Amino acid sequence: MDQRLTIIGLGVKDLVSSTKFYEEKFGWAKLPSSTESITFIQLNGILLSLYPEDKLAEDAEVSPEGIGFKKFTLAYNCRSKEDVDKTIANLRSKDVKIVKEPQEVFWGGYSSYIADPDDNLWEIAFNPFLEMDDTGNVT
Amino acid sequence: MDQRLTIIGLGVKDLVSSTKFYEEKFGWAKLPSSTESITFIQLNGILLSLYPEDKLAEDAEVSPEGIGFKKFTLAYNCRSKEDVDKTIANLRSKDVKIVKEPQEVFWGGYSSYIADPDDNLWEIAFNPFLEMDDTGNVT
Repeated sequence: MDQRLTIIGLGVKDLVSSTKFYEEKFGWAKLPSSTESITFIQLNGILLSLYPEDKLAEDAEVSPEGIGFKKFTLAYNCRSKEDVDKTIANLRSKDVKIVKEPQEVFWGGYSSYIADPDDNLWEIAFNPFLEMDDTGNVT
Repeated sequence: MDQRLTIIGLGVKDLVSSTKFYEEKFGWAKLPSSTESITFIQLNGILLSLYPEDKLAEDAEVSPEGIGFKKFTLAYNCRSKEDVDKTIANLRSKDVKIVKEPQEVFWGGYSSYIADPDDNLWEIAFNPFLEMDDTGNVT
């Protein structure tokens, strides 16, 4: 298997609200291939898809039951501490739930967390040890 | 916010076993920046990180309690149906749990699911409508 990933699929309660969240709070645009049943957002080399959680479970042939911490996080790395503060201030002004305020963390970075409408956790962080190119790809 | 993502962090029960899973079953190599506390694997432009689930919850300042379906999936897209069959046969020979056998699906693709040791679901699929470049980036 090549060392790569194609899609992160989030199972959501309400596709319309979740899609609006990523469009209005993050300012991201969905792909024209999105439909009333599924939303696709092009990220750097991968797609983020939003799909009703019961249908996602059905597709994978697993039980849809699940509660609490989902045991995964998604990270959006900023290019500076100031950029983390600015991003969080912007999200706060749009009533996004701030789960952890920006702060220095033990590994030498500066990190915060927000939640989307389905309590998917996005870390908004600056990591001085992580190199990214102009498109945001980790190098 | 740019339309990009930096890291997918999976909260795992046992870092050693989960790291071995990705090394031995997927054949992926961890980055030298990995430590006894965290594993990093470079994918196309993003990192996959493995981190103990209780520490991930602690980092995000959320409760570590959570059971059942995690309501997210990761997809590894193959370049043909045959490649899906071959990948699943290879994973099966390494005793990976096959959650859904490869099959034609309603949207016109060919799809299967496997589970990692923490029941993170990987869809192994062929999507004739999705374009990828040589590095596996969605274009």
